[in-house]
Amino acid sequence: MTRVYFDWAASAIPDTPLLQLSLQQSLENYANPSAKHSQGRSAHTLLESARSRCASVLRVPPASLYFTSGGTESNQLVLQSPIFAPPGGLAVPSAAFFSSTEHPSVLDNARFLEAAGCAVHQVNPEQDGRVSPEVLTRSLERFLDHDAGKGASTSRRLRLVAIMAVNNETGAIQDIPALVAAVRSFCRERGLPPVHFHCDAVQAAGKTVLHLAAWGVDSAAISAHKLGVPRGIGLLYLRRKLETRSAGGHQEGGIRSGTENLFGALGMALALERHALSAGPRIPAVVSVSTLPDATAAAAAAARFARLLGTLRTLPSSTSTASSACVPIPADRAENDPRFSPYILQLRCPGIPGEVMVRALDDLGISVSTGSACSSNSPRRVVLEAMGLAPSHAFEGFRVSQGWSTTDDDIDALVDGIRRVRTIF
Amino acid sequence: MTRVYFDWAASAIPDTPLLQLSLQQSLENYANPSAKHSQGRSAHTLLESARSRCASVLRVPPASLYFTSGGTESNQLVLQSPIFAPPGGLAVPSAAFFSSTEHPSVLDNARFLEAAGCAVHQVNPEQDGRVSPEVLTRSLERFLDHDAGKGASTSRRLRLVAIMAVNNETGAIQDIPALVAAVRSFCRERGLPPVHFHCDAVQAAGKTVLHLAAWGVDSAAISAHKLGVPRGIGLLYLRRKLETRSAGGHQEGGIRSGTENLFGALGMALALERHALSAGPRIPAVVSVSTLPDATAAAAAAARFARLLGTLRTLPSSTSTASSACVPIPADRAENDPRFSPYILQLRCPGIPGEVMVRALDDLGISVSTGSACSSNSPRRVVLEAMGLAPSHAFEGFRVSQGWSTTDDDIDALVDGIRRVRTIF
Repeated sequence: MTRVYFDWAASAIPDTPLLQLSLQQSLENYANPSAKHSQGRSAHTLLESARSRCASVLRVPPASLYFTSGGTESNQLVLQSPIFAPPGGLAVPSAAFFSSTEHPSVLDNARFLEAAGCAVHQVNPEQDGRVSPEVLTRSLERFLDHDAGKGASTSRRLRLVAIMAVNNETGAIQDIPALVAAVRSFCRERGLPPVHFHCDAVQAAGKTVLHLAAWGVDSAAISAHKLGVPRGIGLLYLRRKLETRSAGGHQEGGIRSGTENLFGALGMALALERHALSAGPRIPAVVSVSTLPDATAAAAAAARFARLLGTLRTLPSSTSTASSACVPIPADRAENDPRFSPYILQLRCPGIPGEVMVRALDDLGISVSTGSACSSNSPRRVVLEAMGLAPSHAFEGFRVSQGWSTTDDDIDALVDGIRRVRTIF
Repeated sequence: MTRVYFDWAASAIPDTPLLQLSLQQSLENYANPSAKHSQGRSAHTLLESARSRCASVLRVPPASLYFTSGGTESNQLVLQSPIFAPPGGLAVPSAAFFSSTEHPSVLDNARFLEAAGCAVHQVNPEQDGRVSPEVLTRSLERFLDHDAGKGASTSRRLRLVAIMAVNNETGAIQDIPALVAAVRSFCRERGLPPVHFHCDAVQAAGKTVLHLAAWGVDSAAISAHKLGVPRGIGLLYLRRKLETRSAGGHQEGGIRSGTENLFGALGMALALERHALSAGPRIPAVVSVSTLPDATAAAAAAARFARLLGTLRTLPSSTSTASSACVPIPADRAENDPRFSPYILQLRCPGIPGEVMVRALDDLGISVSTGSACSSNSPRRVVLEAMGLAPSHAFEGFRVSQGWSTTDDDIDALVDGIRRVRTIF
C-alpha cells in the first residue's frame, strides 16, 4: 500500500538526491577534519565551506554556527551551559523563563536548571498558542516584584528566556523579534544585566521566515532531518560564544566536541540552500536539485492547507452529534492564517480521541501524529492545554504536517480518510 | 596523486557498500521511530533489530546498548552523569581514577567532576603504556590511606574508575578484566560500595578482543566511524541503567534524547557484524560484503605491522648520528607483540620532530598523524610522557594506524617514505 505521509514535522521524507550528494562528497573526503595532513585539511576546508554556506542562507557570520548532533543537542548545549547551571550550583540564585509550549528538548532541561538553583517560570501563550510580548513583560515584572518583596538579599538574577520560533504541534509562529525586544527593554528600563534569549528554531528553518541576526536572539537550534537530510546533524547558532558542557577534543571551537560529521554538515548546507526562507534575497543554491524554489514551496504548502481547512469546514458532522466534523486548533485558525506555519496544522474531530484518529487513519494508510514524537509516550497534551483548551478537547487533537513533496492528492486522501473515520465513530 | 592512508585510528576509510546499504534501508524507513503510526513502528522495529544485531556481536543484552552520536558523547554521558557530578554539587566528597593515557573525550570531563566536588586522580601506566593492576590497587590504597589520615569526616567516596581498552596513540591493550578484578577486590576487601568501571572501547571495537559482559565493566563507549561507517553514531554500553544529563524526548530509554538516527544505527550493526572481534564464536554476518573475515583481517594487519617493524629495524640510521633510523614506542614493542593492537603503532625517528614527520610524509602522499585528532592542537605529548618517555623523545613520536584495506604496497610506500625523510634530516 502506498502510504500518505503527513508527519513531516516528526521527520521529513528524505531528499534522496541531497543525501546521495552529501554522502558522495563525504566519501571522497573521509579523513578526520582535525587531522594535520593534507587529507585532513581538505576535509576541514569542506567542513568550513559547509558552515559558510549555512551561514550565507541564514545570514549570520559563519563563526556563529556550530555543528551539533541535532536540535536536541543544540538546545541542551545552551540550556545546560555552566553559565546557567554550573557544576557546583549557582552562587547567585537565578531565574529562567520558558514558554509553556516549548518542545521537550527545551522544557526537560528545566530540571538541571532547578537543581543548580535556578527558578524556572513558564509563560502561557494566548489562545492561538502565541506568547504575547505584553504578557511576557508582565511575567518578568511579577517575578521582579515578587522578588523585591522578599528583600534584596534573596533577589534572583534573571538569566535566560527560551521561546521557540514555531510550535511543533500547532505551527504557531511566535513573534520572536517583538519578544526579544520586550525582554531587552525590560532589562534596560530596570537596569538589569542582559538576559540570554534562546530560540528553538527547529520547525522554522526552511519553512518560515528566519532571521536570527536581525531578531537579536542570543542562540538558536536547527535540525537537518526536519529538512529531509540526515539525522544526527544540527546547528547551534550563538551570537556570542558560550561555555558549554561538551567535553573532549574541543572541535567546533570548543562548543561541541566529537569528530566532525562532514556528511551531515554537507547535507545541512544543501538542505538550507534548497529550503531555507530568509528574510530577504536568498543566496543562490550551489546545487540545483530542486524542482521548486522555497517561496513557491511555502505558497503551495499554504494553498494545500487552505484547501484542506476549507474542505473540512464543509464536511457533514457526525449524525449523532451537532458538533463539527473536524475543526482546527485553535478554532479560529483561518485559511492562509499568517499566525501559523503552512507546514503544521493541529486538528480535532469532536468525540474522537486523537490517539484513536492516529490509529484509524493509519489503518487507511495515512500517517499523522498527535503531539511531537518526542512526547509520544506522554498521556497529557501539555501544549494544547497551555493554550487554554479544555483537556477533553486537547485530548482529541491530532497533528497534520506536510512538506515540499506533499500533493493535492495527498490532501484529498486525508480528507477522505477523516470523512471515513468520522462515519465510523 | 593516490594517497597512502595510515590514519585509520582518526577515521577509517569508508566502507562504501555498508554505507550505501544502511542509507538505502534508512531511506525506505524514513519515519520517526518514536511515531505511533505503522511507518514509525516499522522504523522502530528496524532500529531495535540494529540494536539486537550489535548486541549479538558484542555478546551483551540488547537492552544494555544505547545509540548515541559517537564515542565522545558515550564517554560524556557516563562521566557527566548526575550520579558522579550532580547539578547542585556532590553532597559527599568523592573521588575518581582515570588512567593518564585516556583520550581527551574522557580526561576533559574531569573538570566537571572536580567542579562538582569530586577529586580526580590519574594513574600512570608502565613503560609499555599499560596500567598494571597492582599499581592501580596501590593508587586506590594510597588514596584511602591518605583520606583516612584526614579523619572520617572528610573521607571521600570512591565512585568511578575509567580505563580505556586500547590506547589511541600507541595501540597498548589494557588488561581490562584484570583491572576490573583489581577494583572489585579492593572494594570487597575494604567493605566499600561498588565502584563504577567505565571503559572507552573506541579503538578496540572491531579491532581487538572485546567482551564487555565477561570483563564486568559497568559501561563502555564505541564509535562507528572508526569502523568505516557514518560519523554521528556511537554506542553506549551500560551494564545497568545510569542516570544521564541527556534531556529531551527520552529516546533510547531516557539515556540519550534526540530523534533516533536509523541510518547510523544500521551502519553500526553492519560494521560490527563485519569487523567486530568477540571473545568466542562470531555471529554470522547478515550481509556479506566482506572480502576478509575479521580474524583473517586482524592476522593480516598484524603481519603487515610485523613486516613494517622488521624492515624499519634494518633501515640504515642517519649518517650524522649513531641512533636508529626509526624505532617503535615503546622501544621494546616486538613484531606480533600481544600487548598492542595490530592496527595502531607509534614510531619515532630520532632527531625528527613528529610534527615534521607528519608534514614530510604528507608531502610524499602519505597520511600519518601524531597523537589523536582530538588533541591535534595540543603542544604536549601527554600519553607518551605518562609512559615515562623523555619529552624530547615523546616530541618525535608519530602514529601509523591501518585498517582492513591497507596493503603490503602501502607498507612498502611508508617504509620508502620514512627512508626518504630520514635521508633529508
